[in-house]
Amino acid sequence: MPHIKLQEGLPGIRGLLVYSPETAKPMGVLAQILLRDDHTLTRAEREMIGAYVSSENDCHYCQHCHGSTAAQLLGGSKGDYTLIDRIKYDFESAPISEKMKALLAIAGKVQKGGKNVTTADVERARHQGATDKEIHDTVLISASFCMFNRYVDGLGTWQPRDGEMYLEIGKQTAAQGYVNRDLSKPLASIATK
Amino acid sequence: MPHIKLQEGLPGIRGLLVYSPETAKPMGVLAQILLRDDHTLTRAEREMIGAYVSSENDCHYCQHCHGSTAAQLLGGSKGDYTLIDRIKYDFESAPISEKMKALLAIAGKVQKGGKNVTTADVERARHQGATDKEIHDTVLISASFCMFNRYVDGLGTWQPRDGEMYLEIGKQTAAQGYVNRDLSKPLASIATK
Repeated sequence: MPHIKLQEGLPGIRGLLVYSPETAKPMGVLAQILLRDDHTLTRAEREMIGAYVSSENDCHYCQHCHGSTAAQLLGGSKGDYTLIDRIKYDFESAPISEKMKALLAIAGKVQKGGKNVTTADVERARHQGATDKEIHDTVLISASFCMFNRYVDGLGTWQPRDGEMYLEIGKQTAAQGYVNRDLSKPLASIATK
Repeated sequence: MPHIKLQEGLPGIRGLLVYSPETAKPMGVLAQILLRDDHTLTRAEREMIGAYVSSENDCHYCQHCHGSTAAQLLGGSKGDYTLIDRIKYDFESAPISEKMKALLAIAGKVQKGGKNVTTADVERARHQGATDKEIHDTVLISASFCMFNRYVDGLGTWQPRDGEMYLEIGKQTAAQGYVNRDLSKPLASIATK
């Protein structure tokens, strides 16, 4: 049960964003800029960073929402879900670019605490072609997921173990992004159960 | 040296907010709502939560900026700085309300990871009169500082050991808050050195 009274039937961060629309707004804008706006990293690559950091923070809801969104953006085949699982398990051996591996390494250091990022980590990323903006945004994506994950878990939100629901959220998010959403409507995958 | 090229002479998050004005905007709005807008917790109490979490995250810049801001809001006497130090060292024995102790305990759990917050932690806060909104905002303040701290440390920003500078920042922030600020102007305490 959530630690505070939230609208029933809204999983994870959705119940919180509906509970507190004032704070929901800047959080949505930040997610939109970091994960959706034009960028040299694809939307799928940025969602992968979010899914990986959420997995490291052991946040069930966020890792599955953003993993599912990344998979949808990649085309949604079974193979793409496998890719997200491989990244979470061991991104260094996953079939992704060397630049993405270097950026995920930075994201993972930030998740443990900002001071863990070394000059060598940054040099590795630069050597693989990462720009200042890509390094900046990777750090901020990881840092922001350390906020989102703590928000979702710290208030004890409802986080169903329901693959169908995360598939629906992934499809929604891949199509609509993070702003101007009506999250108060129950998800079809929940309503029909 | 910072991991990316930032405007020189701007300490901590200031260099980052000037580097990335798009993301600076929603981050400033979020800080303003959580730390400055009308609330049943005073501005000083909310800054204390930020200073405490930043201290737990070992972020020199943030803990001293927000500690200094809290002290300014309390009146800025030497005694108030002592209070911030006592809260960081052991808030349970500090001369603050039992409600604030219960909220700081929740903030500290969130800092370590959201799942650490227990029903007993929340019941303790409620027993001391904390409302749902105060519990919600305490969790989100702590979670947001886990983002701000990682952003500041993860990009290796310049964080001077300069008490005068943190005093100036505390005075500025206590007076102006977190939105519509021009952070690109060097601080007087730095410029005159």
